[in-house]
Amino acid sequence: PAGPRKAAAVENKLPCTLEELYSGSTRKMKISRSVADATGKTIPVEEILTIEVKAGWKKGTKITFPEKGNGQPNVVPADLVFVIDEKPHNVFKRDGNDLIFTQKVSLVEALTGTTITLTTLDGRTLTIPCNEIITPGYEKVVPKEGMPIAKEPGKKGNLRIKFDVKFPSRLTAEQKAGVKRFLGAG
Amino acid sequence: PAGPRKAAAVENKLPCTLEELYSGSTRKMKISRSVADATGKTIPVEEILTIEVKAGWKKGTKITFPEKGNGQPNVVPADLVFVIDEKPHNVFKRDGNDLIFTQKVSLVEALTGTTITLTTLDGRTLTIPCNEIITPGYEKVVPKEGMPIAKEPGKKGNLRIKFDVKFPSRLTAEQKAGVKRFLGAG
Repeated sequence: PAGPRKAAAVENKLPCTLEELYSGSTRKMKISRSVADATGKTIPVEEILTIEVKAGWKKGTKITFPEKGNGQPNVVPADLVFVIDEKPHNVFKRDGNDLIFTQKVSLVEALTGTTITLTTLDGRTLTIPCNEIITPGYEKVVPKEGMPIAKEPGKKGNLRIKFDVKFPSRLTAEQKAGVKRFLGAG
Repeated sequence: PAGPRKAAAVENKLPCTLEELYSGSTRKMKISRSVADATGKTIPVEEILTIEVKAGWKKGTKITFPEKGNGQPNVVPADLVFVIDEKPHNVFKRDGNDLIFTQKVSLVEALTGTTITLTTLDGRTLTIPCNEIITPGYEKVVPKEGMPIAKEPGKKGNLRIKFDVKFPSRLTAEQKAGVKRFLGAG
């Protein structure tokens, strides 16, 4: 015979910072729910659930706590499901296993070289020399400085540096002559 | 009483060049179809249909020739529908009523000025001086050199010029020093 019916699963978002998804994190969630006792009366219960957010988890990852939803008499309580969500980050954007960092550079830096300094999601300082010419659309790839890959422990995606090349807004006649002299063909 | 049933409309694409859609064009289409005569016999017929493509028509515009599809006994012939399609163009891209033209320029031209010469869809030569600094992503708008607007005779969209700024792939130490001297801050 079919058992008692079960309530539909309840989904909740679990917003995580990129730092938490980079390093992993233990989140404790206090939940309040009602359970039905043997007499059929529902009583309120508080519980603390622990979620081990694993390094490299992505938006959409689901963690299910079976039957931790609200109870009613003669109904199996719903499963309680948390869905990982990714909070926007000030510095990095995530693209799958890669991290994207956008660096503003002047035209002079783009042409003559620059050094990029940034703080990783686990707090290290990266110093990245950039002596190639930075053309519009150029992307510099720093291997293994992206997000950890949850299914391949120890592996990481790449850090991809994009550039926003700032041109001067005006040039004097002398500057234009200099540009033609030093960059012009022939 | 309901009349005889009618066959479902038949759609055909009518690919047009941007030039045809810019200036308008008369297209003659030879069609072969069968018609049912009074005795119920179907006989083949050839016909020439004339389509006046109006200046400014867009992809998806439909022209219907009522009952010019194949005929069968006791069925009203289908409508024959032509749907305007836009052939890709080598020079321009259409964006609604606007035309988009992409010009490749060197970094020196971007900084010191250039003149763009292009041939319009109706064969005129446009000469467009560009003495402002061309930053990446800059778009120069030439009013009223876009597509005609079919519903507002005499009106036209804009021509939008985008730029592909080509950076030098390498610079000598002397060139770098010159760039710093003429473009560097301070």
